[in-house]
Amino acid sequence: MFRAAEYKGQRAIAVAPCVPISPAVGEVQIQVSHCGICGTDLHLFHGNMDHRVTLPQVIGHESSGTISALGEGVVDWEVGDRVTVRPLAPCGDCSTCRRGHSHVCPNLKFIGIDAPGAMQGLWTIPAHTLHRLPAALSLLDAALVEPIAVACHDVRMGRVTSGEFAVVIGGGPIGALVALVARHHGARVVVTEINPFRVQLLREMGLEVLDPRTTDVPAFVQVETERDGADVVFEVSGSASGAELMTKLGRVRARIVVVAVFPKPVLVDLHKMFWKEQEMIGTRVYEPVDFDEAIALLTAGEVPFRSLITGVYPLDDVQKGLVEMEQGADVMKTLVDCSS
Amino acid sequence: MFRAAEYKGQRAIAVAPCVPISPAVGEVQIQVSHCGICGTDLHLFHGNMDHRVTLPQVIGHESSGTISALGEGVVDWEVGDRVTVRPLAPCGDCSTCRRGHSHVCPNLKFIGIDAPGAMQGLWTIPAHTLHRLPAALSLLDAALVEPIAVACHDVRMGRVTSGEFAVVIGGGPIGALVALVARHHGARVVVTEINPFRVQLLREMGLEVLDPRTTDVPAFVQVETERDGADVVFEVSGSASGAELMTKLGRVRARIVVVAVFPKPVLVDLHKMFWKEQEMIGTRVYEPVDFDEAIALLTAGEVPFRSLITGVYPLDDVQKGLVEMEQGADVMKTLVDCSS
Repeated sequence: MFRAAEYKGQRAIAVAPCVPISPAVGEVQIQVSHCGICGTDLHLFHGNMDHRVTLPQVIGHESSGTISALGEGVVDWEVGDRVTVRPLAPCGDCSTCRRGHSHVCPNLKFIGIDAPGAMQGLWTIPAHTLHRLPAALSLLDAALVEPIAVACHDVRMGRVTSGEFAVVIGGGPIGALVALVARHHGARVVVTEINPFRVQLLREMGLEVLDPRTTDVPAFVQVETERDGADVVFEVSGSASGAELMTKLGRVRARIVVVAVFPKPVLVDLHKMFWKEQEMIGTRVYEPVDFDEAIALLTAGEVPFRSLITGVYPLDDVQKGLVEMEQGADVMKTLVDCSS
Repeated sequence: MFRAAEYKGQRAIAVAPCVPISPAVGEVQIQVSHCGICGTDLHLFHGNMDHRVTLPQVIGHESSGTISALGEGVVDWEVGDRVTVRPLAPCGDCSTCRRGHSHVCPNLKFIGIDAPGAMQGLWTIPAHTLHRLPAALSLLDAALVEPIAVACHDVRMGRVTSGEFAVVIGGGPIGALVALVARHHGARVVVTEINPFRVQLLREMGLEVLDPRTTDVPAFVQVETERDGADVVFEVSGSASGAELMTKLGRVRARIVVVAVFPKPVLVDLHKMFWKEQEMIGTRVYEPVDFDEAIALLTAGEVPFRSLITGVYPLDDVQKGLVEMEQGADVMKTLVDCSS
């Protein structure tokens, strides 16, 4: 009855019957409701993570669902509980974990890459990954918790405070979420983006958007900050032009948050960092507190996160959704109905 | 009687009679004792700062001396006081100054570049730049206060704590001072350097030195930190290879302190910064507290700073000293006797 979207290698996703796994000690089984398609899934679809996956591999890690079975030793949860999943399984034993940074443990298993993911009807995962959903939050919306938690982590690591001037370079799903969360924290936020569909969508959410090809962004920031510079810059584009721009935009002692995945070393103006004593902060995934904040923000309903959902596809259309992302079609965040 | 070393442009330093300037309101005149030759002076000698200097320009900013005259309104100082000079004149009025970062004020005048420097018998400067020297500290040693203050600033910005593992990339005068100060703060310090004379001198001060051409520095750090990585990395070489090395050496959440002047953008592995959530910190010059610490460290005499002094030249030999630095001769820190 339940089905699963499996990566088969060679740019192919196939839908196959879901093979339910009985939860072992400390595990739970979830009946998955929805799962977002992420840029990481596209990266995986392109074969860039073939060394990490086991074919056929069920993908997906931006999930919501309902607990359908409990393994032994799981005491804080019951069948029927509505949950989202923080898809990280750290080793718990290395120096990074002992220092409290288990979310970036060098031995981290990312569930959905290094272990089977959420795009299936029944999914078995460790209970320590669960976050409880409030009754007021729909399971559809809750599939946004994971990417919102990324943004909450980025904004927290960037120490954004009320009244600050923030620039987000790149207005894709994560850039848009960073902008919305930073704005909610009281910052004035300017987003740079070139895709016309995304520009339009961001503007509909009330965000200030600049096209860096037609606007001199550093000059704009200088004028708007009275020749001071941005307090915080988020590099979410992963582009050479973004890396060039980031040090130009920040003021003295600005924080530059590196959110994007840069596939190879890129030119950075270290002289500007030195001259202005700027700080650059690498940020990855999230910590439990970021999931807590994401759930609270989504539930409060004050931020228009739902506007980012541009499609809800059945499992059969996962590959279509990936190809649309790849081609730069008019999409922002595509969700998958995993009960379909 | 007194003389001055003047930059005349076109790679030329000439010695001319010193023209004493009566101190104006808020200024003092100093009888300069000693002044160190800095990499910045070499940069200036090469013509790279011709847009900032007024020819002929007396150079030098690593000074010690004795107050010889007071301008009006100077109440905290007396003729005969032994002092060193923090050669910064910020505007005091911009957003950076108002935020408390006047040492990197965008309108900063650096005395010795934007205003006449210390390599002269009598030097007139604002009284707000003065730091008092303890009686136990010689005026010769006190010429090291300024570069030691740079190192104190770098170590403080890098938040080095006791028991940490630090790598200093580049063992010239500033790298050596950063290493000595970080070690004094309780860190285990490894320096990378290729110049044989400097390697030898650093080892004589008890520092651990690696030649990155013959040692796999990342592998060494992995072994020595039990596969963890360095807590803090100081990039003091300003080289492409240093910029490549810095992200490799740090652990998760390592601090990477950018001390060097990189003349142009350089390739940086932002993916490693992202993956390990590393933090990069640009640092420049110093704040008053760094001068305070430098004076205290020098006076306590527990750190072998004096070993860095490889020559004390008369004013006539300033150009010789610059050319020796340029040619990579067997020098570390050359001082100039400004009473000569």
